[in-house]
Amino acid sequence: MKVLGVVVEYNPFHNGHLHHLREAKTLINPDYTIAVMSGNFVQRGEPAILDKFSRAEVAVNMGVDVVLELPFVYCIQDASGFATGSIGVLERTNVVTDIVFGSESSNLEVLDKISSILYEQPKSFKKLLNKNLKKGFSFPNARKFALVEYLESSNYEHNLIDILEQSNDILGIEYLNALKLYDSKIIPHTIPRIKAGYNQKEFTGEISSATAIRNLIEKNEMNKVRQGVPPFSYEVLLREIEKGKAPIIFEDMRDMILGKLRMMKKEELIQIDGVKEGLETRYSKFSKISSNLTELINNVKTKRFTLTRVKRTLLKIFFDLKERDVKLYNSHGPQYLRVLAFTKKGQELLGKMKDLSTYPIITTPSTYRKIYNRLNDKLLSSKKRYQSIPEIYLNQIEYDFLASNIYTLLYKNRALSSYEPDKKQRVIIL
Amino acid sequence: MKVLGVVVEYNPFHNGHLHHLREAKTLINPDYTIAVMSGNFVQRGEPAILDKFSRAEVAVNMGVDVVLELPFVYCIQDASGFATGSIGVLERTNVVTDIVFGSESSNLEVLDKISSILYEQPKSFKKLLNKNLKKGFSFPNARKFALVEYLESSNYEHNLIDILEQSNDILGIEYLNALKLYDSKIIPHTIPRIKAGYNQKEFTGEISSATAIRNLIEKNEMNKVRQGVPPFSYEVLLREIEKGKAPIIFEDMRDMILGKLRMMKKEELIQIDGVKEGLETRYSKFSKISSNLTELINNVKTKRFTLTRVKRTLLKIFFDLKERDVKLYNSHGPQYLRVLAFTKKGQELLGKMKDLSTYPIITTPSTYRKIYNRLNDKLLSSKKRYQSIPEIYLNQIEYDFLASNIYTLLYKNRALSSYEPDKKQRVIIL
Repeated sequence: MKVLGVVVEYNPFHNGHLHHLREAKTLINPDYTIAVMSGNFVQRGEPAILDKFSRAEVAVNMGVDVVLELPFVYCIQDASGFATGSIGVLERTNVVTDIVFGSESSNLEVLDKISSILYEQPKSFKKLLNKNLKKGFSFPNARKFALVEYLESSNYEHNLIDILEQSNDILGIEYLNALKLYDSKIIPHTIPRIKAGYNQKEFTGEISSATAIRNLIEKNEMNKVRQGVPPFSYEVLLREIEKGKAPIIFEDMRDMILGKLRMMKKEELIQIDGVKEGLETRYSKFSKISSNLTELINNVKTKRFTLTRVKRTLLKIFFDLKERDVKLYNSHGPQYLRVLAFTKKGQELLGKMKDLSTYPIITTPSTYRKIYNRLNDKLLSSKKRYQSIPEIYLNQIEYDFLASNIYTLLYKNRALSSYEPDKKQRVIIL
Repeated sequence: MKVLGVVVEYNPFHNGHLHHLREAKTLINPDYTIAVMSGNFVQRGEPAILDKFSRAEVAVNMGVDVVLELPFVYCIQDASGFATGSIGVLERTNVVTDIVFGSESSNLEVLDKISSILYEQPKSFKKLLNKNLKKGFSFPNARKFALVEYLESSNYEHNLIDILEQSNDILGIEYLNALKLYDSKIIPHTIPRIKAGYNQKEFTGEISSATAIRNLIEKNEMNKVRQGVPPFSYEVLLREIEKGKAPIIFEDMRDMILGKLRMMKKEELIQIDGVKEGLETRYSKFSKISSNLTELINNVKTKRFTLTRVKRTLLKIFFDLKERDVKLYNSHGPQYLRVLAFTKKGQELLGKMKDLSTYPIITTPSTYRKIYNRLNDKLLSSKKRYQSIPEIYLNQIEYDFLASNIYTLLYKNRALSSYEPDKKQRVIIL
């Protein structure tokens, strides 16, 4: 049995995604396909333009058999934390045999070589890394230069700079790292990215980046959007806009984030994951003299503190995601498998997962406390069925609920802000 | 030399306030008049409709010589804490000789009798109070019934219920208590309230309650507002509305407060001043299923948890005003005298205050750190000029700045949200 796993955000689902999914299926010819998908907040450090249920609904309609939610605490982390979470979910299903990810270079050998260095961290590499960090480079840049220097010195010849500057390749390297971390038997594959780059802002027709499409949605140029996304994705988008639930943009969090930041002292700020090296001073200063989030982000970012880091950190500050907690989450990985949607075929696969996985599979989130109690009981009775650590399980899943309850406050239709999605929205079955 | 002190909110300044000010002056015939005024948040548990600088500007134009700011930490407390702060400010000027407050009963003898009981807390009274609290009455009600029972048993005959149900009388009793607390030589006086009650919602013509006038402002019925406020107050109101700085209403804090509440755990909630006896559970539950603050407040309030308590507590939660801190502030009183506005005549009085007061008089808030350092130095050199406790001074004044920086986020004109009022707005001189 072959089970394909993919890591996605579908923010929103567009033609490029469909193409990628089909290519991956052609490559693997799987019996089933599982996607692990970001929830209501995404790795760019923003709320998703559309809520997780709508995005999961589109995914199952587009050919994914089971959509699992990436726990919130991993969604807004850097590439490494994001990969730890997403590969963790796929690995812990205990059914995924192959993963496929998009890659600009599509050169698995080089990616794996780099991943090995990063995973093993040879001394001379670490030295180079520290040297570059001291020069004031951002972490991604310092690492990039250190890798190039390290591989040059070991006579490895390849055009590395290109790879290390491409967002999909960077993520790919982290996926490979995460597979090593979990000692996984899953086989990784790459497929080349087509046409539109991840960060490309302009609309380029049928295959456009999610960024370009989100910009069009914000500007309400829905006729252009229609060209860039499959009909069902378009339908769901229109439906959610109609309901007043979309589009959600980062600026919608202005009062929450500026309100919280202006309240916080530096001592509190430095406890948050990623807030260090003077970033706390910049937040403290600029939160008071910026009128909105765009202004704040532009004021805070520097060569060292990249745009995305600043945005992710803002969300971590708002959600009180402390460095010590993130370390704990990253060293233990995701503690449950939350099912957002599945197809008839996916139901068979869920049956197999229930047999094979050693982590709880959650389709009815309101039972989460019962599962927590069961985890504790199992520990006591030492009939070790699940491997989850009860307290970490509880923190992770409560963060998912929290993220949803904050997300509803962003709806234009404010009457819907009183809705608790994770309590009330049933798993989507196609 | 006679110096009249009054406690005001001027939210906004209306004809009733002018009448009250003139009556007080007629009664005392003072050389100078000082007002202590709430800052950007008021005792009803709401942001002020107009910022503190505009309100202070109106006050000096209407006949007050010096406007001092009531430190934020006292503004949003119950009558007792509010009185501790406001009487504390007036007392610590060391120049105020008389205070005048409005009173429905205008019976100083009865008010003082009640105040003495509350201040001395005889055993049998305490017993009656606890009995009523156990019955589930709100604190004000429990206290009211206990007082009536206590005084009946000591054959004191007077219609107390009326007094204890009238908001000005209740505040008046607390002012008298606070005078005892500071062992003050200031002489209290009452003048009868005229026509409009404090909480009266309807517009009744020339003399209307601030509540009625705020409602009209919200509905933009400015022609009616014009009838209820002096011309200069009206002018300032229009100017601030024009600028996009007013009116500010509680609902403007929806995202901040609901966003924060949904994030908080019960363990964190119960640390906040006034959050106890199950109020934490109500906040925790209803914050998730209320779409806005009005809904939340209506959901949370009960016979025991009154509307105003709920609103004040919401602000305390947002501003993280913990019970232990409030106790500290109330036992030490205000630690500085912040000047918001003064007249030419007021300038003379400020000169005298500088000679006589043992607390720092702050007209340029940006010097607050320098003063803090000086307070610390004085402590070390034991040349005890100021009585302020450095750390409490610092916390109190930083809360004022914080409150202003949050208030600017509520402006309709969002470009002004980047303005730090306490750093940039100079003291108003008429």
